[in-house]
Amino acid sequence: VAVMDRRVDSKGLSAFSKDILREVGLPEKDAAITTESLIDANLRGVDTHGITRLSIYTRRLEEGVVNASPEMNLIKNTETAAILDGDNGQGQVVGMRAAEEAIKMATDKGSGFVGVKHSNHFGTAAFFGMKILEAGHIGLVLSNAPSTMVPFGGARPYFGTNPIAITIPAGQELPIVIDMATSVVAQGKIILADKEGKSIPEGWAVDKNGNPTTDTKAALEGAVLPLGGPKGSALALMVDILSGVLTGAFWGPYLNSMWDDFENPQNVGHFIGAINVEGFMPLEKFKERVDQIIREIKAVPQAPGFKEVCLPGEIEFRTRDERLKKGIPLGEGVFSDLVKLGKKYNKDFEVYIK
Amino acid sequence: VAVMDRRVDSKGLSAFSKDILREVGLPEKDAAITTESLIDANLRGVDTHGITRLSIYTRRLEEGVVNASPEMNLIKNTETAAILDGDNGQGQVVGMRAAEEAIKMATDKGSGFVGVKHSNHFGTAAFFGMKILEAGHIGLVLSNAPSTMVPFGGARPYFGTNPIAITIPAGQELPIVIDMATSVVAQGKIILADKEGKSIPEGWAVDKNGNPTTDTKAALEGAVLPLGGPKGSALALMVDILSGVLTGAFWGPYLNSMWDDFENPQNVGHFIGAINVEGFMPLEKFKERVDQIIREIKAVPQAPGFKEVCLPGEIEFRTRDERLKKGIPLGEGVFSDLVKLGKKYNKDFEVYIK
Repeated sequence: VAVMDRRVDSKGLSAFSKDILREVGLPEKDAAITTESLIDANLRGVDTHGITRLSIYTRRLEEGVVNASPEMNLIKNTETAAILDGDNGQGQVVGMRAAEEAIKMATDKGSGFVGVKHSNHFGTAAFFGMKILEAGHIGLVLSNAPSTMVPFGGARPYFGTNPIAITIPAGQELPIVIDMATSVVAQGKIILADKEGKSIPEGWAVDKNGNPTTDTKAALEGAVLPLGGPKGSALALMVDILSGVLTGAFWGPYLNSMWDDFENPQNVGHFIGAINVEGFMPLEKFKERVDQIIREIKAVPQAPGFKEVCLPGEIEFRTRDERLKKGIPLGEGVFSDLVKLGKKYNKDFEVYIK
Repeated sequence: VAVMDRRVDSKGLSAFSKDILREVGLPEKDAAITTESLIDANLRGVDTHGITRLSIYTRRLEEGVVNASPEMNLIKNTETAAILDGDNGQGQVVGMRAAEEAIKMATDKGSGFVGVKHSNHFGTAAFFGMKILEAGHIGLVLSNAPSTMVPFGGARPYFGTNPIAITIPAGQELPIVIDMATSVVAQGKIILADKEGKSIPEGWAVDKNGNPTTDTKAALEGAVLPLGGPKGSALALMVDILSGVLTGAFWGPYLNSMWDDFENPQNVGHFIGAINVEGFMPLEKFKERVDQIIREIKAVPQAPGFKEVCLPGEIEFRTRDERLKKGIPLGEGVFSDLVKLGKKYNKDFEVYIK
């Protein structure tokens, strides 16, 4: 009998996550922010960045390789730019502080950018981008990541899959939420294919000598390829420069692993920006025009094989609606990890999810 | 006997272009800016945006569908954002005014963004981006373009190939100049393959029903595909929103053609931004760190089939050096167009290029 995913109510999952994070020292507010990011990822169908990460976050906080009580330091050098030293705090906590400051500067001065150093894995970039669009601004959220991707023409990894999130408020339509890795695919898809014993399409990855491969094992020893060759490579470089080179954080090969290194802080860098729509036109007018472009794109006839033309973020919003009603599906592995994690801290996972 | 490209000195070409543009009413300074953009494109090897465009620019100015004496109007709504109404001026002239204002705001306030409406084709985006990096800032230059690209999942074009330029100053190394269409390839490459009687690779374009095609004729009746499917489509949408929706310019299907429409102004929109490095770290320190990442990427071992790993813009800088010394190669068609154009205005092209 195949083990089916079990649907779990997001509220129970959220309460469990918060309580576990409190146990390893996160203050109430910080446990809430981190949890919100994880549950939001699950609700939107981005399960790789969801509750499955609670175990590793917890372990790193407990071992002190992530600082549960950071004393963050924000230095404003110009009216619209700041550097935030995250003091090795939990990525979501540091990222949220940066997003709040970017929003404030955009509200006051028209735009605001915060470069972040000494941070950690911060979950999905879209999470912060959506906070920015909810404030009526256009959001830009970048983060670097440990190297798993070759630069175009290279045989060895240098860049991470360095995501780019861009978020744009709409009126009656769903807002536009772009959140994309600068690689062809996330490494997680190769790991999944490997588990399922499948090969991967050409163009996804190279082996350890930089040769194209469709073999998952060879790909996992090698590296992923940048989106569209030189273009994705250029975008990943831009992300590493803004998030790492410009901020004083590490970048590419210098970033320490979240999974394997429990001694050295990651020193992840982020770059979080907000641009105030009112600097260009009244927000309400802008939202109407965004609604118009969304409706027109939805009305473009579909290419053969497509049921509809979707806007960036649209599928995730639909998944969110569905999962808020029906619960978040958890695979057997994730489920038993959470049960085990609960036991360690004397919390009964089954009780939380009823 | 095959007709060889003829090498022409950039100075002579530049003088010719300026004189022709003066003849159709551009003021001295504006003729110089437009010419600088064209010659810079040729020098960098981006011949599609070079002197070959002088004929169409001239014709549009002469017919009055582009305004040779625009009264541009800049409205600053916040301290770091402005809307520039280009009054249907030549794109390079309007774009340069926007770039200057973005630089000024970034110098004073840490960042600056100018949304531009009522503009025209402005040449390469990199041209303005390089002005921004020369001022010590990080540049972002976007422009929309008439629709030739399907949205992901669509069968009909909606977006233009909407380019993104990002420019970053370096120290002793060459600066980083990213300038990329958000399509897999520029339509020009399909036109070239068509002229040469070649087929195109799968994944470049679709026919008029949205089916994949390798036939150039079918592709030219159809549309180009976005870079990496949903990702390029999302980036093109972002460009159209920032350049058109946010500024009051046209976007996508509303933009009028530069080539076929001599009655209606194009109403192209641009979005030009500058971010002051000093808001994050001293410029000199940043430049050293950019030099470091450049050198490290150059040192990544090459993948099989590659002679070296190149940074964005590197090949163009090398081409520039070579063409400054040896001249700009002009194909027979472009050459004879320029001769003809010169005759019309009583300027002997051969005399300019000695």
